[in-house]
Amino acid sequence: MLLDDIKGVGDIKNIDPADYQELAQEIRDFLIEKISRTGGHLGSNLGAVELTMALHLVLNLPQDKLIWDVGHQSYTHKLLTGRREGFDNLRKFGGMSGFPKRKESQCDCFDTGHSSTSISAGLGLVKARDLQGETGTVVSVIGDGSLTGGMAYEALNNAAKLETNFIIVLNDNNMSISENVGGVSKYLNNIRTTDAYLDIKEGIYNTLKDIPKGNKVVEGIRKAKSSFKQLVVPGMFFEDMGITYLGPVDGHNIPAMLRVFQEAKRTRNAVLVHVITQKGKGFLPAERHPARFHGADPFNVETGLPTTPRTTANYTDVFSTVMTKLGARDEKVVAITAAMPDGTGLKRFRNMYPDRFFDVGIAEEHAVTFAAGLAAGGLKPVVAVYSSFLQRAYDQILHDVCIQKLPVVFAIDRAGLVGSDGETHQGIFDLSYLSSIPGIQILAPKNKWELSDMMKYAISLGAPVAIRYPRGEAYAGLKEYRAPIEQGKAELLWAEGEICLMALGSMVKTAWEVKARLNEKGYKCSLVNARFAKPIDQCAVEWAAENHTLVVSMEENVASGGFGEKVRDAMARFKDGEGYLQVALPDEYVEHGNVELLKKEVGIDPETVTERIIKEMESRS
Amino acid sequence: MLLDDIKGVGDIKNIDPADYQELAQEIRDFLIEKISRTGGHLGSNLGAVELTMALHLVLNLPQDKLIWDVGHQSYTHKLLTGRREGFDNLRKFGGMSGFPKRKESQCDCFDTGHSSTSISAGLGLVKARDLQGETGTVVSVIGDGSLTGGMAYEALNNAAKLETNFIIVLNDNNMSISENVGGVSKYLNNIRTTDAYLDIKEGIYNTLKDIPKGNKVVEGIRKAKSSFKQLVVPGMFFEDMGITYLGPVDGHNIPAMLRVFQEAKRTRNAVLVHVITQKGKGFLPAERHPARFHGADPFNVETGLPTTPRTTANYTDVFSTVMTKLGARDEKVVAITAAMPDGTGLKRFRNMYPDRFFDVGIAEEHAVTFAAGLAAGGLKPVVAVYSSFLQRAYDQILHDVCIQKLPVVFAIDRAGLVGSDGETHQGIFDLSYLSSIPGIQILAPKNKWELSDMMKYAISLGAPVAIRYPRGEAYAGLKEYRAPIEQGKAELLWAEGEICLMALGSMVKTAWEVKARLNEKGYKCSLVNARFAKPIDQCAVEWAAENHTLVVSMEENVASGGFGEKVRDAMARFKDGEGYLQVALPDEYVEHGNVELLKKEVGIDPETVTERIIKEMESRS
Repeated sequence: MLLDDIKGVGDIKNIDPADYQELAQEIRDFLIEKISRTGGHLGSNLGAVELTMALHLVLNLPQDKLIWDVGHQSYTHKLLTGRREGFDNLRKFGGMSGFPKRKESQCDCFDTGHSSTSISAGLGLVKARDLQGETGTVVSVIGDGSLTGGMAYEALNNAAKLETNFIIVLNDNNMSISENVGGVSKYLNNIRTTDAYLDIKEGIYNTLKDIPKGNKVVEGIRKAKSSFKQLVVPGMFFEDMGITYLGPVDGHNIPAMLRVFQEAKRTRNAVLVHVITQKGKGFLPAERHPARFHGADPFNVETGLPTTPRTTANYTDVFSTVMTKLGARDEKVVAITAAMPDGTGLKRFRNMYPDRFFDVGIAEEHAVTFAAGLAAGGLKPVVAVYSSFLQRAYDQILHDVCIQKLPVVFAIDRAGLVGSDGETHQGIFDLSYLSSIPGIQILAPKNKWELSDMMKYAISLGAPVAIRYPRGEAYAGLKEYRAPIEQGKAELLWAEGEICLMALGSMVKTAWEVKARLNEKGYKCSLVNARFAKPIDQCAVEWAAENHTLVVSMEENVASGGFGEKVRDAMARFKDGEGYLQVALPDEYVEHGNVELLKKEVGIDPETVTERIIKEMESRS
Repeated sequence: MLLDDIKGVGDIKNIDPADYQELAQEIRDFLIEKISRTGGHLGSNLGAVELTMALHLVLNLPQDKLIWDVGHQSYTHKLLTGRREGFDNLRKFGGMSGFPKRKESQCDCFDTGHSSTSISAGLGLVKARDLQGETGTVVSVIGDGSLTGGMAYEALNNAAKLETNFIIVLNDNNMSISENVGGVSKYLNNIRTTDAYLDIKEGIYNTLKDIPKGNKVVEGIRKAKSSFKQLVVPGMFFEDMGITYLGPVDGHNIPAMLRVFQEAKRTRNAVLVHVITQKGKGFLPAERHPARFHGADPFNVETGLPTTPRTTANYTDVFSTVMTKLGARDEKVVAITAAMPDGTGLKRFRNMYPDRFFDVGIAEEHAVTFAAGLAAGGLKPVVAVYSSFLQRAYDQILHDVCIQKLPVVFAIDRAGLVGSDGETHQGIFDLSYLSSIPGIQILAPKNKWELSDMMKYAISLGAPVAIRYPRGEAYAGLKEYRAPIEQGKAELLWAEGEICLMALGSMVKTAWEVKARLNEKGYKCSLVNARFAKPIDQCAVEWAAENHTLVVSMEENVASGGFGEKVRDAMARFKDGEGYLQVALPDEYVEHGNVELLKKEVGIDPETVTERIIKEMESRS
């Protein structure tokens, strides 16, 4: 096998060019086989095999710098930099990350995870290189989906000023996670379908570069030339900004890419190389169902179907169902996603109410202010978004929605530990950043029925409100507890004994288990389903403090600024000196791994919580 | 006076077109006279007089919707909508806001303050209009500076899909607050200097609209036409995205603008009207010194000089000085601003070290990730930014800087209450949103010397660190206390009695006054300068709790997630039951007004704090 000769970075350069295609096939087979067992990002990696090979052939890593936007397409890069063994434990706790990590390899020069950061980071590395008199090529690889994110454009706008080499590779597969949207996407599509290719324009290009200005005659020539350029050069949009455009080039044709990359390396300013790739290339199920194979669970290689079909509903399904119901009931309900109709569960709403559904692309900031505009116009927008991505729109929630008290509902999926995507994707900060914002209500459901009830409450509230719920299976226990949702009111689930557990959202299930364990150990305890992280239920906290010797707050969020601090604050308002224990995530990033394992690791699993409570009780007696 | 006939919205339509120029002059005189007394945004408003008049002549407010990006240029709009009286109390507590406010007038349809939101909000209003079967024109007015913000581009990308009317007015004065930057700015400048004007292209335009695709022959024609279009149509950048471009048009020529706006209203998709204006138009000092007259203090109308020249240094000056020193000492120190070389005090650094200074335009997200790239490349970047604008980059700090523990220094100016700019600009959330981020250190200086010391500490730290300091005069008291900055260590200023004040940053000055007042009332108290909001000095808190009956935390930030919650947390780790009082801002937005007044209003002034402490002490005895 050719792949056996790739033991470390640079080894690909010893491969006979005649064998490139075979190596690409081996890499594809390897990735499909491995990801089918571990799960992971398949489609984007299959699309980037030849592109990665070409970049590794042209660059000298780690002296040259290669930044992968989002980073989920870096598997071939990992393979070509000596991390083949890592794929057996891909995305597992303690194993290899599914994203580039500086701590994993010298060839990973900048960590990524969220979208649209690579050009900014690359530009920083370029400036650092030049200021320190270093050499080396810096390449940022960005997808056309990531290009819909505003900070990519902010970076392009700045890259346009460069008078030194910086290569931006536009890996264009006409997809975000789902189908891509917007004017730029349409523009790129027009380029893709032209037959004006690189070679025709190369000669013309240099002639055009340094045209003097000011003089009207020269200006006339400039215009004429410029229009000629437009005739044969498809990338005017980028050239207009001041960025040299090369392409489009076939992203599965290694020799063609090598020619363009060599040309790009000679450019003395920022150059965008437009590479056309196909997501899922070489694996039919992934080519046909790109969204499903974006981040795939383990699957059967023959059929492409999941190894363990999901039998229970997750919170996304519950949200999906309630949204269609709310949509049917009230024509003012509209839904917004930032490039995630599948992941957020809005696809069904889109299919039923296409006019009231908006996919804005990877553009969380716009999504939120756009929702504010919809609300100011009299509608009831629901922004469905992952917790860690909503971090992008903190200012827009604070500044555009909440100052004006606009009735925008934030349906925050993947809140809490998300597992195998790791540090960049854990949704463990939303309670903190949202709690600091005046005028927003923050809720979290204990089980699937409560998510449904909370959505109905939120839609009818007429003020900013966020509901956070975790990734994965929707808890179907505690069905018998379904008191109506009342503003700022907790739900009492159980009252006895000297310990009171006040749990929020996903932690109610944990608390129920903790309660059983405490009972076994001879402790009795009350259980309050907090429901609201903001406003906190002062009465419930006072009741807890008054009738118990220890109040335990439980949340799946970092401690700072989260639910527990509000509970303690409410206790202090009441009286000093009550026993209080805070169960929350520590002040650190949490790596990838199975969620149950991670919970144990950070100490919010039933066993650890029970032990902590017993220890606390013993120290008090 | 013509202005006397303008009593409410629509009255301008009764003015004889022959008098437009005279009215414009009266408005300018009015604005200059009023702003010279109250202070306020002068340059942007003088530039937008005719533009606003033209829009009011074309639109029917409040049925039509007019959104002002940032909003500081809305003074003429306020004048034309019956708010002339408000100018006497402009930006004063209880008086008229310097920004559009829905609660102030029906003609203000969307509150603004931060940059680049208007297209997103406008698009929301357009969709709300169409879905509810309403009519009316929606206009977003955005400056070329705001156009460097990524979310404006996200919105343009989405507006490109519209098949209904939406007018975007690009108010192009070739300026942010300071000189504008980047590729798009250069591109706009190229348009400005061409002589291809609107009228030449109008006829051609319609011919070009619906070109069929797919067929190669037609495609050939399309290209030829497209290149012809490029010859005469300057706005290809926008047209490439799918947005109709009209202009450029002289923004001080009302009849010309009226023609273009009428044309724009007839368009059945998103249309960008490119209007060329001059910042400060009609007032020579403002034309010459646009940055100084962006947000001006009261000034002498004859000379343009401030009525009360500033005699004492503010924190920005101190930062400015220390940056030049740090720059001289270490070539790795580089500085980044998002369009604010003047406001942040980086201008001197720029003048001395132009290669190591980066103005990225209004692009906070890019600024932070760019800094992360610089740091990953081995440099020591300092991002100087206002507290409320850094909200835009919460995710980038968390995701791009802190996960990788990159040594980026955030110099956060305008932290705390900023005064007359009001709700959108108060820097009262940074302790909360930063504290939630693992691995960042957060400091705040008690006085001017300490800011200098902290900057030196930060540059040498080699890890993410933020220093927050307030707007206005740098406190020059407590000079005799200057213990070296040590990681996570507070500074003990005074030790006696039963009360311990633990104050952060600007509140140390307040605490010193509170101490004096308490002494007068017979209470003795200790005073700790906390220095670090994160990590909190556990030892200092324990010392405070052990040796006093009441610990008072004092901060100029909202309570949720701020400094006080960390103090209480540290106390709880030590032992329960200590007396604790939290002095922080309430969970609400704070309006515009004089800072001292605002402090009293929210209860963080020396008098109120003293009263609260005495009440607490009395309740305990």
